[in-house]
Amino acid sequence: MSANASVSSVSSLSSAEIARRQADAIRFLAVDAILKAGEGHQGVPLGMAEIATALFTRHLKFNPNDPLWPDRDRFVVSNGHGSMLLYALLHLTGYEKISLSQVMSFRELGSHCAGHPEYDPAAGIETTTGPLGQGIANALGMAIAEAQLRARFGSEIVDHMTYAFVGDGCLQEGVGQEVISLAGHLRLGHLVFVWDDNRITDDGATSLSISEDVAERFRVAGWHVAEVDGHDIEAVSDALAKARKDDRPSLIACRTTIAKGVRRLEGQRGGHSGKLFDTDRQEMSDRLGWPATRFTVPNEVAAAWRDAGTRSRDEYDSWQRRVATLDDATRTLLGRTVEGRLPEGWRDVTSTYRAQAIARKKPAYSIETSGEVASALYDLMPDIMTCCADLEAPTNHKRQLEAFSAANPRGRYVHCGVREHAMGSLANGMAAHGGVIPLAVTYFAFADYERPAMRMAALMGLPVKFIFSHDSIGIGKNGPTHQPVEILASLRAMPNMLVLRPADAAEMAECWEIMLEHTTGPVSLVCARQQLDQLRSDTSTDNQSRRGAYVLAEADGERRVTLLATGSEVALAKEARALLQARGVPTAVVSMPCWELFEAQDKGYRSSVLGAGTVRVGVEAAMKFGWERWLGHDGAFVGMPGFGASGPADALYRHFNITTEAIVAAALASL
Amino acid sequence: MSANASVSSVSSLSSAEIARRQADAIRFLAVDAILKAGEGHQGVPLGMAEIATALFTRHLKFNPNDPLWPDRDRFVVSNGHGSMLLYALLHLTGYEKISLSQVMSFRELGSHCAGHPEYDPAAGIETTTGPLGQGIANALGMAIAEAQLRARFGSEIVDHMTYAFVGDGCLQEGVGQEVISLAGHLRLGHLVFVWDDNRITDDGATSLSISEDVAERFRVAGWHVAEVDGHDIEAVSDALAKARKDDRPSLIACRTTIAKGVRRLEGQRGGHSGKLFDTDRQEMSDRLGWPATRFTVPNEVAAAWRDAGTRSRDEYDSWQRRVATLDDATRTLLGRTVEGRLPEGWRDVTSTYRAQAIARKKPAYSIETSGEVASALYDLMPDIMTCCADLEAPTNHKRQLEAFSAANPRGRYVHCGVREHAMGSLANGMAAHGGVIPLAVTYFAFADYERPAMRMAALMGLPVKFIFSHDSIGIGKNGPTHQPVEILASLRAMPNMLVLRPADAAEMAECWEIMLEHTTGPVSLVCARQQLDQLRSDTSTDNQSRRGAYVLAEADGERRVTLLATGSEVALAKEARALLQARGVPTAVVSMPCWELFEAQDKGYRSSVLGAGTVRVGVEAAMKFGWERWLGHDGAFVGMPGFGASGPADALYRHFNITTEAIVAAALASL
Repeated sequence: MSANASVSSVSSLSSAEIARRQADAIRFLAVDAILKAGEGHQGVPLGMAEIATALFTRHLKFNPNDPLWPDRDRFVVSNGHGSMLLYALLHLTGYEKISLSQVMSFRELGSHCAGHPEYDPAAGIETTTGPLGQGIANALGMAIAEAQLRARFGSEIVDHMTYAFVGDGCLQEGVGQEVISLAGHLRLGHLVFVWDDNRITDDGATSLSISEDVAERFRVAGWHVAEVDGHDIEAVSDALAKARKDDRPSLIACRTTIAKGVRRLEGQRGGHSGKLFDTDRQEMSDRLGWPATRFTVPNEVAAAWRDAGTRSRDEYDSWQRRVATLDDATRTLLGRTVEGRLPEGWRDVTSTYRAQAIARKKPAYSIETSGEVASALYDLMPDIMTCCADLEAPTNHKRQLEAFSAANPRGRYVHCGVREHAMGSLANGMAAHGGVIPLAVTYFAFADYERPAMRMAALMGLPVKFIFSHDSIGIGKNGPTHQPVEILASLRAMPNMLVLRPADAAEMAECWEIMLEHTTGPVSLVCARQQLDQLRSDTSTDNQSRRGAYVLAEADGERRVTLLATGSEVALAKEARALLQARGVPTAVVSMPCWELFEAQDKGYRSSVLGAGTVRVGVEAAMKFGWERWLGHDGAFVGMPGFGASGPADALYRHFNITTEAIVAAALASL
Repeated sequence: MSANASVSSVSSLSSAEIARRQADAIRFLAVDAILKAGEGHQGVPLGMAEIATALFTRHLKFNPNDPLWPDRDRFVVSNGHGSMLLYALLHLTGYEKISLSQVMSFRELGSHCAGHPEYDPAAGIETTTGPLGQGIANALGMAIAEAQLRARFGSEIVDHMTYAFVGDGCLQEGVGQEVISLAGHLRLGHLVFVWDDNRITDDGATSLSISEDVAERFRVAGWHVAEVDGHDIEAVSDALAKARKDDRPSLIACRTTIAKGVRRLEGQRGGHSGKLFDTDRQEMSDRLGWPATRFTVPNEVAAAWRDAGTRSRDEYDSWQRRVATLDDATRTLLGRTVEGRLPEGWRDVTSTYRAQAIARKKPAYSIETSGEVASALYDLMPDIMTCCADLEAPTNHKRQLEAFSAANPRGRYVHCGVREHAMGSLANGMAAHGGVIPLAVTYFAFADYERPAMRMAALMGLPVKFIFSHDSIGIGKNGPTHQPVEILASLRAMPNMLVLRPADAAEMAECWEIMLEHTTGPVSLVCARQQLDQLRSDTSTDNQSRRGAYVLAEADGERRVTLLATGSEVALAKEARALLQARGVPTAVVSMPCWELFEAQDKGYRSSVLGAGTVRVGVEAAMKFGWERWLGHDGAFVGMPGFGASGPADALYRHFNITTEAIVAAALASL
């Protein structure tokens, strides 16, 4: 705590005066930290200080001593450049990880107080924000998770709000409208956005680029909207009280002055992140009667903030008591759900599916096998929620799950509409909220629409399952707009993203195992639209895909050629092997469902799979980019030369020379 | 033309009846083509047949004999899955490239009638559509280009409309709202959207995922809105007439029945793209009195459509006369502008800048050097328009250009707001429109928001200049959300995208030359935020960067080590070279501003640059992914292990071990 006894304590203040000074405490901590860092964005903490004070001292349900309390309200600063607002609040209310020394090291390497908030719920940071629009979309996902869990466990156990602070940028971004539209449709009454309507962006007046009534957009989408003076704590608090009661999502549009408190920058373009000077601080502290010493808070004000940190203590205790009175089974289930642990026996489902697929020996639509595994798991794993962007039929993630809706919040299938970006981000929010395992399903070509969200999942290490169908020219006639050729590479380039591309139903079961086990980051499961032969015939119970790549068919004789392939092209490699063997060239086929897992194997294993000294040919109906890692500098590659084309799938494979014959020719030419 | 004399001609029909049957001609061509292809999306051509008839027979200004007529109205089918609507219209009105045989080969490899429309203005296809929202965003860019050129050349020469057909999906996508908001703000009176309000998407009723009044969203954004029965040709035509006169952008919300005409599917989910059967066609032709023979159009109907194709002949001729009366200089400028040719002397500007940079020998902010080159070119190249996503100051693309606005359409600086996705797509639309060279400027980290548009630019081969700042951990304290580490790789993976990352101001001038010369696809110019030393000291007039990579500093002695680097890391490589030379290890530094151009060089050149047989070390403050191409299988790499962190730039470079010492160590370890 930053109270400094050496500072003369301010005494006998009215509660209104205390509240006003609590807001100033935020201002000064922000200014002091930004001055020390030499840079930062003062606009938000200065402009939203009263709003934050109203929320944290009178409405927010939270416990700094147990930041992970499952039934806490979630608080998101979607205008994440205003990070010092969040750090000031967390510090003042007593979050241990946001100590004064952390605040004093704002923006320094290793500080919990990073330039933009970085996901760390134990520190009170519910999600990473900065890229605009992500935070409010996360908040939408949190509110969906809350509503679903509330329906599932009852409001005695789950009953909390999600609040998001939002700036003009978040609402200009398209994903912002996707969120507004979907939240209104779903009538998420526990979701409240508080808009910092300061009419200034980095470029200057918002009137340079927008002239509509933003609040009206929310009304059109079915939101409850209040418009208040954002520097009037009472007015904001009243609006928050009303918002909490309304059964619609609420927008509180707060008219504010950017950088309020720093006279020189108030309402100015430079208020956003223009450089602060010592003289600004001096003028401000003189005028507002604040200690000249940096990073100090008058005792009475510090005490008021400490009190705010304990305001939910009774609610916390009574929640604990209610959980204690649950029957054992429910309490155990709740614990498992909150902690994201998988239920006993889930692996039996995937193992059985694999065994059946191998026994069945029949071609199967790749995406359909993913849907089948999902379906087989749905009953056992009530925490799975499927989010789908208007593509239930083609992606085969079935509506056997009831739709999540205002009327039926127990539903586990979220009709996201044609809103891939919001879908990805709300899935991130679900994962950050906890208690839900989100799947996000769409066409692979539209992974690009979702990509900003996928990057955030990877950065935060959230276990979101991104599932894709229609993964190559194999989709045929819909043409190059719908044929991903570069997206595998672009996702493999992303840190902390597992990219899985199974070759048959057995690998699909294994990839689902990997996906569910993987809790330190997101997974992209990439499925073909078309039928894939059942290639695997082993009855091993070992998950072969878990090592990322493995020898699917060893050479008959001393291996001279190694064919490396993924997904739908493994079958081609297998056919090519037969032809090469017939020509007396011992050839192995390696299936590589996951490069990242293979990269993590020891060198000996990798070398044995890749076949040191053998001729290597890569086969994938995609760009070569990145394959050099496995093929060496001059390795041959059978794949796409560029974008695809519209035509039947088999004609396209021939047209682009991704054929058995081409593989054989490439191998022979390299021998 | 598909009229078939063997079909008994329908005679003495009223004009209303003719119009009705013109709409049916679209229906039957679409159904026949889809039946022949075995798949396709009938929902749009069946549901929008009357709307299209109203537009093409009474309003659209076009000339099938000169599809590239610069002053033609632009027509975009943003709901591009409804491609057969477009092909039917182009065929019926007489576009030579869309012959009956092309229509009959719908969705076959090589057909101009691809699954989704593929950019080919000579065929009447103004842009590639399919990924939802892209078409309307392109249309916005076309309308901006038109308004700017109209202000520049006068409405005698430039005065045309942009019409876009749009489905529910386009309007659910976030980019759709970005477009609505920006178009309303810019008050683009020559832009008209016609919404196919059929209340069905691929998933079923739109009510599954949306419940707002969509038309009201347009009103809120300042659009003129009309709501009509989309099957009433007169009503649609009246609304189009009013829209053309309104000085605001217009939405015509047309209530339609999806798949109208195919009784079994009307208003049904299956109407979108559910399988059609011969019996559907039979029932439809019986009921509507249409020839049983496929791909035939009754003579009188075909003639009416041919007439529609000539409806703008007078306007066309008078436009040609007006152009002929222009003074020589203006006519020459117009020709150069329309054809996208660069003005005489532009290379003098870049050459002079390069020479001055080399002479100056001073560190310079990388993005600022880009802005300086742009500034130096602005007067000479009035066709350059700069689109910027709320980042003028940090990206240094200066407001010396006046803002493009409703009040000042001559402006060349488009304040796009925090709407990167729309910015990229509208830049595509500007390029597709012609007469404008669009720059689209934002932070590199937010390339992901723009990526769906960048992919379309690459696919279409549009010469859009995507300019990025803040390209690495060099941005420092804003942290990992704002530090691209994987985006270079993800863009290098994209076909037909030139990725340029200059190392100093001389390379910046060269990259600008490459960027402006490159007309067959987009370019990504990737700039650092921080200062870069002036590394080049040569006085050669040759553009070294044009070969993609070159030896910046040859080894002193027989080369044993080759350091390969790009952008801000070339300076590190140069320092490392000095240390290695001092230790007696002859070392060369290769700067690689553009991998794609280097890849296109002959093997001899590549080999001489890469240094066959030498130890190679790659240096780039980014992920290694893709570098194996140049480094071989076991080449050393000094770069990022994953996402970045928040802290001062120099501390981050040390933290992630991207240092001169690390380069030296890596080289020595490999010797």
